[in-house]
Amino acid sequence: WSQAVENTAMDNVATERRAEESHRQDSADLLIFIMLLTLTILTIWLFKHRRFRFLHETGLAMIYGLLVGVILRFGVHVPRNTNNVTMSCSVNASPATLLVNVSGRFYEYTLKGEVSTVKGPEVQDDEMLRKVTFDPEVFFNILLPPIIFYAGYSLKRRHFFRNLGSILAYAFMGTVISCFVIGLVMYGCVSLMKTVGQLGGDFFFTDCLLFGAIVSATDPITVLAIFNELKVDVDLYALMFGESVLNDAVAIVLSSSIGAYQPAGDNSHTFDATALIKSFGVFLGVFSGSFALGVATGVMTFTKLRDFPLLETALFFLMSWSTFLLAEACEMTGVVAVLFCGMTQAHYTYNNLSPDSQNRTKQLFELLNFLAENFIFSYMGLTLFTFQSHVFNPMFIIGSFISIFLGRAANIYPLSFLLNLGRKNKIGSNFQHVMMFAGLRGAMTFALSIRDTATYARRMMFSTTLLIVFLTVWVCGGGTTPVLSFMSIRVGVDSDQDNSVNALDGIQRRDTEHERAWPFRMWYNFDHTYLKPLLTHSGPPLTATLPACCGHLAHCLTSPQAYENEGRLHNDDSDDLVLNDGNATMYEDVTVSTDALGTRTANPKHSRMPAFGEHELVVRGTCLVMQLDDPTMSTPPPATSPPPFSDPFVDPFSEPRRNRL
Amino acid sequence: WSQAVENTAMDNVATERRAEESHRQDSADLLIFIMLLTLTILTIWLFKHRRFRFLHETGLAMIYGLLVGVILRFGVHVPRNTNNVTMSCSVNASPATLLVNVSGRFYEYTLKGEVSTVKGPEVQDDEMLRKVTFDPEVFFNILLPPIIFYAGYSLKRRHFFRNLGSILAYAFMGTVISCFVIGLVMYGCVSLMKTVGQLGGDFFFTDCLLFGAIVSATDPITVLAIFNELKVDVDLYALMFGESVLNDAVAIVLSSSIGAYQPAGDNSHTFDATALIKSFGVFLGVFSGSFALGVATGVMTFTKLRDFPLLETALFFLMSWSTFLLAEACEMTGVVAVLFCGMTQAHYTYNNLSPDSQNRTKQLFELLNFLAENFIFSYMGLTLFTFQSHVFNPMFIIGSFISIFLGRAANIYPLSFLLNLGRKNKIGSNFQHVMMFAGLRGAMTFALSIRDTATYARRMMFSTTLLIVFLTVWVCGGGTTPVLSFMSIRVGVDSDQDNSVNALDGIQRRDTEHERAWPFRMWYNFDHTYLKPLLTHSGPPLTATLPACCGHLAHCLTSPQAYENEGRLHNDDSDDLVLNDGNATMYEDVTVSTDALGTRTANPKHSRMPAFGEHELVVRGTCLVMQLDDPTMSTPPPATSPPPFSDPFVDPFSEPRRNRL
Repeated sequence: WSQAVENTAMDNVATERRAEESHRQDSADLLIFIMLLTLTILTIWLFKHRRFRFLHETGLAMIYGLLVGVILRFGVHVPRNTNNVTMSCSVNASPATLLVNVSGRFYEYTLKGEVSTVKGPEVQDDEMLRKVTFDPEVFFNILLPPIIFYAGYSLKRRHFFRNLGSILAYAFMGTVISCFVIGLVMYGCVSLMKTVGQLGGDFFFTDCLLFGAIVSATDPITVLAIFNELKVDVDLYALMFGESVLNDAVAIVLSSSIGAYQPAGDNSHTFDATALIKSFGVFLGVFSGSFALGVATGVMTFTKLRDFPLLETALFFLMSWSTFLLAEACEMTGVVAVLFCGMTQAHYTYNNLSPDSQNRTKQLFELLNFLAENFIFSYMGLTLFTFQSHVFNPMFIIGSFISIFLGRAANIYPLSFLLNLGRKNKIGSNFQHVMMFAGLRGAMTFALSIRDTATYARRMMFSTTLLIVFLTVWVCGGGTTPVLSFMSIRVGVDSDQDNSVNALDGIQRRDTEHERAWPFRMWYNFDHTYLKPLLTHSGPPLTATLPACCGHLAHCLTSPQAYENEGRLHNDDSDDLVLNDGNATMYEDVTVSTDALGTRTANPKHSRMPAFGEHELVVRGTCLVMQLDDPTMSTPPPATSPPPFSDPFVDPFSEPRRNRL
Repeated sequence: WSQAVENTAMDNVATERRAEESHRQDSADLLIFIMLLTLTILTIWLFKHRRFRFLHETGLAMIYGLLVGVILRFGVHVPRNTNNVTMSCSVNASPATLLVNVSGRFYEYTLKGEVSTVKGPEVQDDEMLRKVTFDPEVFFNILLPPIIFYAGYSLKRRHFFRNLGSILAYAFMGTVISCFVIGLVMYGCVSLMKTVGQLGGDFFFTDCLLFGAIVSATDPITVLAIFNELKVDVDLYALMFGESVLNDAVAIVLSSSIGAYQPAGDNSHTFDATALIKSFGVFLGVFSGSFALGVATGVMTFTKLRDFPLLETALFFLMSWSTFLLAEACEMTGVVAVLFCGMTQAHYTYNNLSPDSQNRTKQLFELLNFLAENFIFSYMGLTLFTFQSHVFNPMFIIGSFISIFLGRAANIYPLSFLLNLGRKNKIGSNFQHVMMFAGLRGAMTFALSIRDTATYARRMMFSTTLLIVFLTVWVCGGGTTPVLSFMSIRVGVDSDQDNSVNALDGIQRRDTEHERAWPFRMWYNFDHTYLKPLLTHSGPPLTATLPACCGHLAHCLTSPQAYENEGRLHNDDSDDLVLNDGNATMYEDVTVSTDALGTRTANPKHSRMPAFGEHELVVRGTCLVMQLDDPTMSTPPPATSPPPFSDPFVDPFSEPRRNRL
């Protein structure tokens, strides 16, 4: 018995040692990535410092990833770990959990996945390479959500809403067009490969369509960063950013509905109308479900936590995350839910946050986005060499480059033509060329393609996708500045300058008014009159906007702070007054009386002091804002004039913009 | 062949479905925790709002965790998943990776751990409970580091250094004493249990010692939160906080050295002098190694990233994390490394950051700390019901409560007596009683005990530890306010008020001077003259502090910004001058010319403008700081007077403290 105890103890020690060793190795592997990121950050700083623009940080991260991948692949030789000897044991199923009986003691094993039959027993050869390979789900569930959320949260909503129709057209119809064009071209290419004998496995039409969906998610982050720096035309920026944000959502839902396309019966991989309709139903259901979920969470108001910014920030963060998880748990798409959650939170919830929390959330998500993005891109570089089952097929690669070019062209040019029929502010051909050129592929495409690399077709798609991302990021990213100047796109545009000119020029202003479509105007009015007051406390109180018959209801639904807004208006304590210039539509960029950091609320002492002097007029969009620090100007404004509230379409990330006359 | 393809496709679909289902379940489980945290935050807000003090947020998180645990355990019945049928397969070893051959296809399985033999085949019964159980390493590698880092980063260093000797005594000697006292008492208890026949498995002396090490890590977070709110005496606060921060590090290293105590030969679990010495060597090696590593990373300077706060914050975050990983990869203790990294970064690196980054890093780590802490505590509550192999033994539990009481007493009272022999500022008996009372156990104890629950002894230790944490947090946490008033501890103490009184009163000042031990004075002088100038650019340039012979070296090592400090000093542009009051020791709280947010550096434009008016005198500790905004006072100060630099002992988290005369 003593011998048995001894053995058990020795066994325990051995197991512990092994666990320790494995943990040590894990830490070292993670350290590689941290070092990669650190290196990237330092180089980015160098580039920013010296104002290099030909290579974006993500391109850089990829290059470093590539270098480390090469080193790991060819330079490092980990001595074979004899403890890890793999053994075969024949059972007749592959359960998720396996219990192994080793001389009377039970060990639990969990299924990791299928191993390619060809490699079979020599799977442990590449221990080191396998160690640096993450579970693909990590990208989807951990790294992608902050990126997508940040995109939604930092969307410049003013310009986004101004171009909403076009953006929706590009994002929905365009992505679907692009997906089918790419799918068809690739099907042709694959058929050709099959006749030539270049194809080493199955490649069905659904696979082609899936490839189309995967590479239809554009991610012009590199281009947009340059746009931002050069202050390129805001409409072009809005079109491209809006499209890229939304087409990620479309592509992800599209790919999952193509996955759901399972023809009934045994005539597999042929056309089946029922399955197609089902797929379409899945697309609509998942998209609208995720949308609803995201909006529902985004709309939540937390009115009374303002005094504790830490709690508020934590709650905000948790709410966003729970949206993602909830969507995933309901078999919807978390990424889409998070996108709309971010957009709604920026539109409503942001107004309810304390200034400190506004700042904190912004900085937190900025950091998360930065880290996640650079991590994904450096992992992409790494995986080109460390991924074990690449299938590079020259014909497929050439075919895919042709197809994505055709797909992008079939998206941009016809849609732009159709949109220009309805738009006052035409999308010029130079804009179209730039949009065509800026069809980069990025993190979303990568995450979608690495998610499943089980079959031959999927592996070939993954390898090709990697090359597409590399080339588009380096070539298109690096070529942005020359292309902009070649296409003679205006740079150095100050969006506000632009606006105030519009506002002062009567003819131009009428133009912009007509430009707005009536659904947008209706939405804006509805949002401003009912949703904003209901969901935030920055609007006018509901009691003022709802008809008198709903007085009691309105009273219940209005937050005390909204009354404060009204009260403050009548008290006239050194606050902003919005003087309407007779034009009550106000759907443009109205007033930013609090700046981005919300100094108004931040300085309660200051506002109580009677301040003299400073009496300024601010022109924003179509209306005038008069800033009063003068107690003599204390006549109450007419009851119909809107009280101060923060601009629904001003993005929370811009500097306080105030044009002094 | 077509049939085979069909089968494969069907198989793939089935595998995919299973993976999807499992992912959905994972999301739902994580959602439970997020909801728990959300609930906790909302209740914390309610408590803060209504100023309830009897229950701290962590106690609350535990209660919610308990409730959810009860629901999961008794309320939820997940239908048995037939796909997860476990099968036994006899092999003669337990490799880390297992390859299973299922009718010609290979599946890879990874070792999850040993399953208790008693339960054996019915392991899948508690699918739901197992799903909400995290890998214990998650606590150590993900949740604990931010908590420990934040403790180091937010340490009030001024008071910490003032009581350094006592803190080190409590943390090192005290924890070791406590560990051995608890170990011995428990060994007695276990021997008694064995004779009575209450012991159901092995329990060796090393296990007793390990238990001692685990429960010696105090975590008076609840008490400290109340202290902070009530502004309890700063020295008491510093003693308790310093001790709790450092004894975590000691306990963790102690427990790993006890684990390393493996007597040679087959006379297992008996005394072996060589093994003891080896253990001691491991303790010293791991502790000093981790310390050195943490300090080395903390000391890194990034001088030129100031213009890009995002990059700076990201780099700061990555550096802290890589310290942890590096230590783990080198077989040292990441948590200890991270603690000292945090302390050093607060002391040196913080001064090099841009004001924006100072704010960002502080808020980021505050948030991470908050989330991690509440997560751990709610998980603790949950695990009381969901952990599957609890061993509750009444005798052991009673014995352990007696032993921790004795261990704490053997730590505090004798050491306080010895320390009081050397201290001018005695640790009063009421302080000692409060320290005795505040020996709560928390996150570190939990993480240490859940790390390994393989043997019977470990399981009993884990269950008992859980109870200890619950009771101490609720009873001691809830009883803090009554105990404080019973012990007549001063509350509402303003630390600065205290100081300026000291400074003005000559006799008292001499007292405080004598109080400082010479090693501390030497360290301060060394730090101030060499380390600060070398590692930050907030001190005087090295060229001024090093002897002339090292001029060239000094020139190389001084950052350009430090020269700016000097230059600014001679230019006298609206900056602070430090006028020494004849007493050059200056080891106390010297001058905070830049406030916590570093407005000086934040307003470069402002400092170039010739400012008039405001001419104030600031008394800090033993010296006078004269703030000049008056260009007429522009006589250069004597070369020996120290130039403006930020206070080495001011904690970055306090408000700017400036006493106007």
